[in-house]
Amino acid sequence: MSDQPRVEIYTKADCPSCEKAKDLFDSKGIEYETYNVTDDEGRFEEMVERADGRQTAPEVFIDDELIGGWDDTAALNETGELDEKLGVTEESGDEIVEHRKLIIAGTGIAGLTAAIYAGRSNNEPLVIEGDEPGGQLTLTTDVANYPGFPDGIGGPELVNNMKEQATQFGAELQNGIIESVDDSSRPFRVEMKNGDVYTADAVIAASGASARTLGIPGEDELMGYGLSTCATCDGAFFRGEDMLVVGGGDAAMEEATFLTKFADTVYIAHRREEFRAEDYWVDRVQEKVDEGEIEIMKNTELIEIYGSQEEGVDHVTLVENEQGHPTDRLEDPETEEFDFDVGAVFFAIGHTPNTDYLADTGVETDADGYLKTKGGDGGGQTETDVPGMFGAGDVVDYHYQQAVTAAGMGSKAALDADEYLEDLERAESTAEEAEPAAADD
Amino acid sequence: MSDQPRVEIYTKADCPSCEKAKDLFDSKGIEYETYNVTDDEGRFEEMVERADGRQTAPEVFIDDELIGGWDDTAALNETGELDEKLGVTEESGDEIVEHRKLIIAGTGIAGLTAAIYAGRSNNEPLVIEGDEPGGQLTLTTDVANYPGFPDGIGGPELVNNMKEQATQFGAELQNGIIESVDDSSRPFRVEMKNGDVYTADAVIAASGASARTLGIPGEDELMGYGLSTCATCDGAFFRGEDMLVVGGGDAAMEEATFLTKFADTVYIAHRREEFRAEDYWVDRVQEKVDEGEIEIMKNTELIEIYGSQEEGVDHVTLVENEQGHPTDRLEDPETEEFDFDVGAVFFAIGHTPNTDYLADTGVETDADGYLKTKGGDGGGQTETDVPGMFGAGDVVDYHYQQAVTAAGMGSKAALDADEYLEDLERAESTAEEAEPAAADD
Repeated sequence: MSDQPRVEIYTKADCPSCEKAKDLFDSKGIEYETYNVTDDEGRFEEMVERADGRQTAPEVFIDDELIGGWDDTAALNETGELDEKLGVTEESGDEIVEHRKLIIAGTGIAGLTAAIYAGRSNNEPLVIEGDEPGGQLTLTTDVANYPGFPDGIGGPELVNNMKEQATQFGAELQNGIIESVDDSSRPFRVEMKNGDVYTADAVIAASGASARTLGIPGEDELMGYGLSTCATCDGAFFRGEDMLVVGGGDAAMEEATFLTKFADTVYIAHRREEFRAEDYWVDRVQEKVDEGEIEIMKNTELIEIYGSQEEGVDHVTLVENEQGHPTDRLEDPETEEFDFDVGAVFFAIGHTPNTDYLADTGVETDADGYLKTKGGDGGGQTETDVPGMFGAGDVVDYHYQQAVTAAGMGSKAALDADEYLEDLERAESTAEEAEPAAADD
Repeated sequence: MSDQPRVEIYTKADCPSCEKAKDLFDSKGIEYETYNVTDDEGRFEEMVERADGRQTAPEVFIDDELIGGWDDTAALNETGELDEKLGVTEESGDEIVEHRKLIIAGTGIAGLTAAIYAGRSNNEPLVIEGDEPGGQLTLTTDVANYPGFPDGIGGPELVNNMKEQATQFGAELQNGIIESVDDSSRPFRVEMKNGDVYTADAVIAASGASARTLGIPGEDELMGYGLSTCATCDGAFFRGEDMLVVGGGDAAMEEATFLTKFADTVYIAHRREEFRAEDYWVDRVQEKVDEGEIEIMKNTELIEIYGSQEEGVDHVTLVENEQGHPTDRLEDPETEEFDFDVGAVFFAIGHTPNTDYLADTGVETDADGYLKTKGGDGGGQTETDVPGMFGAGDVVDYHYQQAVTAAGMGSKAALDADEYLEDLERAESTAEEAEPAAADD
């Protein structure tokens, strides 16, 4: 396009969100310039200045206008405004673009494994990327426990391998976000945020779960300005600062260990006495504690973050009670409240399943919003309450949440969906055969 | 050992059983000579002569005495006779060799994934190889649908990768076969075929399933003499012959496709009209049918195999009835019985779960012998009826039976076992703390 506006993206090394931003513009056929701010103080300062003080990459500009980080860019894309700014006109609207046998929501490990299997079953799945293409594993630098890779494998690399594998077997991956699924008639109507509508005989929900926040004062203002949900994305921006990680599971331990590369000291605030993390991670953290790089604050919770978008995080307020869950014991005289200086805060406090687009369907969820599924044959668990709709991965599994368990479930969902589709086809062809016969009578 | 007897092993290329035989002697520290019969007519004839007409590799000899193939060697190892012949004296008997937190039965994909996870949870699992080390995947030349390997990966290579990964995280793999598990008291007593006894706080049954046979006349006599359950192991021995594959699932399609490399024509006998195999494999077979390399015999069953150990398979008797399942319709005048000339027969008719060693426990099985497990949190399904005993992989899953579903379940079993072990530890330390306190009163 000759009249394409000028797109600029500030990036850094080891930045999954930067890759997503670039992928998005690639998928639209839009050219862009990138400026890598890693180890380039001048570029970094330029970015912070142009991005109104924001210190996280990516920062995207279109014709010198600040679009923002990946979340902002993705949000603008959802509404179609990004395409408008880019002068990209897509045929869209409230008409049916295409009918597919199978649509898979999500391109994390569960969605991609479902895509591999569905491709091999000739169900030619359309796989919708959603707003976190590649899913949570893209935020993991090194996956050590996915079976088959004794030297470990990078999260983004594993995801890319699966994308390639799925594509080879006939899966079609497409950028976009599902607004809603209508299960009131068959085929299902799948409406996209950009207005496109697909129909599908079967749907696999593999839309994962997104990082949770605390909802405390300072959070909204400082998210992206010193507060982050992704240590691998943003840790390097706060080199030499004291950093606070909030959480007690595997993710918190992994992030804290990772952050020791950059931090003066990493503090872990956990609301209970014991960590939920696997021993492997607890041991890694303990080593760093022994080396003086990590300090653990047990039975401690974060209640406020102070700072500004210009200066970043200045300090936080914490509460502590040796019986645990101090915010439940604010009235208890034993509960101690104190201010604490840190330059960055990382949340690693779990996830919320992404199921908004299923709100109007008959698919049931539990109290935390996870999809309820029921057993198929042989220990399967991918069928929802709506025949033809299946669930797999972290949008269902609130307990194990491993790459390999998501993969196993993705495979099952595709095999269950294939059985459903074959039954459907058989029923349809029987109906077709029966009709002319009836006419003959 | 200077007085070690002379061990000779005839091997061939692409022969998982040959690798197992070599691994077994390696594990005992016994030296051996190997003779590769692939493309060596002279060696092949020598092997057939020394092995009393048997045409399959491996063939093992100790001090010129014919031990037999892998199954014979493994059987002799189970009883301890192999060690006697080799002059290997091991401390054993009915005494407890060691206590372990966790014993995993099986080193297929499920057992090895459980071992990776249990290792990372510091449960230092002892992993018992069983009589089919590496499990069924060692019989698969190319695994195309295990997520993460876009170019596919060899079955034995994937298994070896997982072994390395499990060992790295502290799992100990050990040659041997479990005779029985005693769950009448805690810890569990795990008795080995060689008389060794271990105790364990938890057990994961990941012992898989073994190839099924038909139980028809000629079968016992000709197994290993033209009849086989492993095309990749034995196909190359019958170059230029017509071959018959019995079955209609993925394995049958894969084996038939593989055998076209060697066979004059491959025939597939399937008792029903439709194959159970995934479309991918049905399509691959159809291509070979179009090329004249495979012929499909639907609604056809094998009822007898003729031949001799000297000359191999000569011909078979088949029955056919267009309504399917012809052996159920032998009285039906429409059922046709006919002889058919083939030089080799391969069974690909499913598997029987390996659960003999659990017979005296409270673990329940279904009518086909598969372990019954129940749901844990988040769609888990690894708990058996006996607390502390868990099941994973094909010994439980009669339906999906994929490498990645076995891996997913192995991971879940290890995480469930870890939770059980942590509860146990907590209960024990609470009991210890409580006792002195009671004495103080």
